[in-house]
Amino acid sequence: MKIVLDAMGGDYGPAPNVEAAVSVAREFGYEIVLVGRQEMIRPLLVQHNTAGLQLPIVHASEVIEMYEHPAQAVKAKKDSSIVVGMQLVARGDADAFVTMGHTGAALAAALFHLGRITGIHRPCLTTAFPTVKGWVLLCDLGANVDCKPEWLVQFALMGSVYAERVMGKRNPRVGLISNGEEETKGTQVVQEAHAMLKHAPINFIGNVQGYDIPLGNADVFVTDGFTGNVIVKFAEGMKTMVESLLREAFMTNLQTKLAGALAKDAIKQIMKQRLDYEEVGGAPLLGVDGVVIIGHGRSKARAIRSALLRAAETVERRVVDAIEDGVKALSSAMSASAALPASH
Amino acid sequence: MKIVLDAMGGDYGPAPNVEAAVSVAREFGYEIVLVGRQEMIRPLLVQHNTAGLQLPIVHASEVIEMYEHPAQAVKAKKDSSIVVGMQLVARGDADAFVTMGHTGAALAAALFHLGRITGIHRPCLTTAFPTVKGWVLLCDLGANVDCKPEWLVQFALMGSVYAERVMGKRNPRVGLISNGEEETKGTQVVQEAHAMLKHAPINFIGNVQGYDIPLGNADVFVTDGFTGNVIVKFAEGMKTMVESLLREAFMTNLQTKLAGALAKDAIKQIMKQRLDYEEVGGAPLLGVDGVVIIGHGRSKARAIRSALLRAAETVERRVVDAIEDGVKALSSAMSASAALPASH
Repeated sequence: MKIVLDAMGGDYGPAPNVEAAVSVAREFGYEIVLVGRQEMIRPLLVQHNTAGLQLPIVHASEVIEMYEHPAQAVKAKKDSSIVVGMQLVARGDADAFVTMGHTGAALAAALFHLGRITGIHRPCLTTAFPTVKGWVLLCDLGANVDCKPEWLVQFALMGSVYAERVMGKRNPRVGLISNGEEETKGTQVVQEAHAMLKHAPINFIGNVQGYDIPLGNADVFVTDGFTGNVIVKFAEGMKTMVESLLREAFMTNLQTKLAGALAKDAIKQIMKQRLDYEEVGGAPLLGVDGVVIIGHGRSKARAIRSALLRAAETVERRVVDAIEDGVKALSSAMSASAALPASH
Repeated sequence: MKIVLDAMGGDYGPAPNVEAAVSVAREFGYEIVLVGRQEMIRPLLVQHNTAGLQLPIVHASEVIEMYEHPAQAVKAKKDSSIVVGMQLVARGDADAFVTMGHTGAALAAALFHLGRITGIHRPCLTTAFPTVKGWVLLCDLGANVDCKPEWLVQFALMGSVYAERVMGKRNPRVGLISNGEEETKGTQVVQEAHAMLKHAPINFIGNVQGYDIPLGNADVFVTDGFTGNVIVKFAEGMKTMVESLLREAFMTNLQTKLAGALAKDAIKQIMKQRLDYEEVGGAPLLGVDGVVIIGHGRSKARAIRSALLRAAETVERRVVDAIEDGVKALSSAMSASAALPASH
């Protein structure tokens, strides 16, 4: 297993990336290729005991900053860690690419250097999303804003494959986000996607609504990149709001202040365990012809370590092949259903 | 002030409606017309001291149930409380209609009996939405799923008028929900709406993102009915999730159980005060030619009372007239901006 890690990715720079790489190389024996500025990576690496570990550095002189325009940056910065790292995978020199860096740039570089899996219209960005019943998969998160129905159907298929193979969900329940349960609810695009999904070779449970997401009433939630992006960012804001309300509640009087002192750590811990990215590390960019895992910019070593392990699993469980097979099966199912009389 | 209240509306039947009507009639001297089954309303009314209060009953033999198809129900049940009540306003026999009942049916009845304000393409459903900085207005919530850019622009105008006149926001900040701040972000429809909103006679602050909503970074959040519906229902689910995580945190050990016992009431109270509908009662259906306030089905007397007061304010502050004037101003502004060279 040879995984390329964008050592420059994320809000905390190379240090947590190097730490995570060392930890995974030591514990699992994987080769982790650190791509980025060698003059920054090497001094961090020598602080660790790396005897016998496979931790090569591939120098890349440039870094794509978070504010840059994705496609333009990928074109202009040919020697950036994201571009150089993606090329290693594209050339077959490595099995997977992992980054905590610029999501849009990773998407653009993946499209340019890896290309799409045969038959896939558009790749989709995913995220593991916390629910009362554990982590589920949400896609798309913003790669595709104006979607066609058949794109949503493919997102559903790809999400189902990943949830089954990597997230350990058996026969994952796939829900299509809409503004009502009935199949007549939703935008024109959602209604058409619903009609097609009924014939798709996945466990489609129909439309799901906003409240079904935090309640974990599906394993894979499918939506367009506009809605997905709004949902994920709304959840972020709501978390901040709840924290603020709790602080306020604990400040009510002496009794609640005591309660706050007693329960603060337990609440923090449970919120961290159940709502934070550290556990899941990253989520795949699905539909490109290679394994790409993109993590949160705020990831620390523990989250990056999880992302590297997710990448290894995605390679081992042959997710890319499974999507390729799935798309063929989907295409046959769609043709077969189109051949049926309209009443069926 | 004469307000029609759908006495049959809401999950708890006529009792809280009657209670709220009596309270508002007594305290403010308004006439509250109770529409619904008189054999159910009268026995409730006699339990209160109504001497000198104006609380006429208008009998309506039918009730539109929550599961019914809105337009069909409105057509079929001509003697339902929603239809009879809306007709009273349409005929000029009352100033406003308030219901905790079937939202879609109220919308259909309003469109059919009141019609739209001249120049308005589509009415929009709104809700008061809790944020860390107090209540804001969110529209549309599902009346219009596939929206045209000019509809979104009108939602923005109508929301701005209501927020200023009734919610007490001075020069309300109007944000367009998108998947990024830049005006190049969003669906085609959102991008076109953004371009038009820059010339609209309102305080348009540009695109806002999901996290800006709970953080209260605008006074009016504008979106299509699909996204708005998903957001509101997602927030509902997230509240349930947070309550469940808190319960879990307080069950960690003896210390946290003690903390839970000490802080439970304060937390409940703050969540209720800051996240619940009781305070705001209801939100207007904007764009129809009359005042219609629709409240949450789970409303109790306190929320219904708030909804009645909102209706009175909406009448007093002449929101319908202000929208009519606003639409004319908007239309002039749009024509003027269209006449400018493209570089402006």
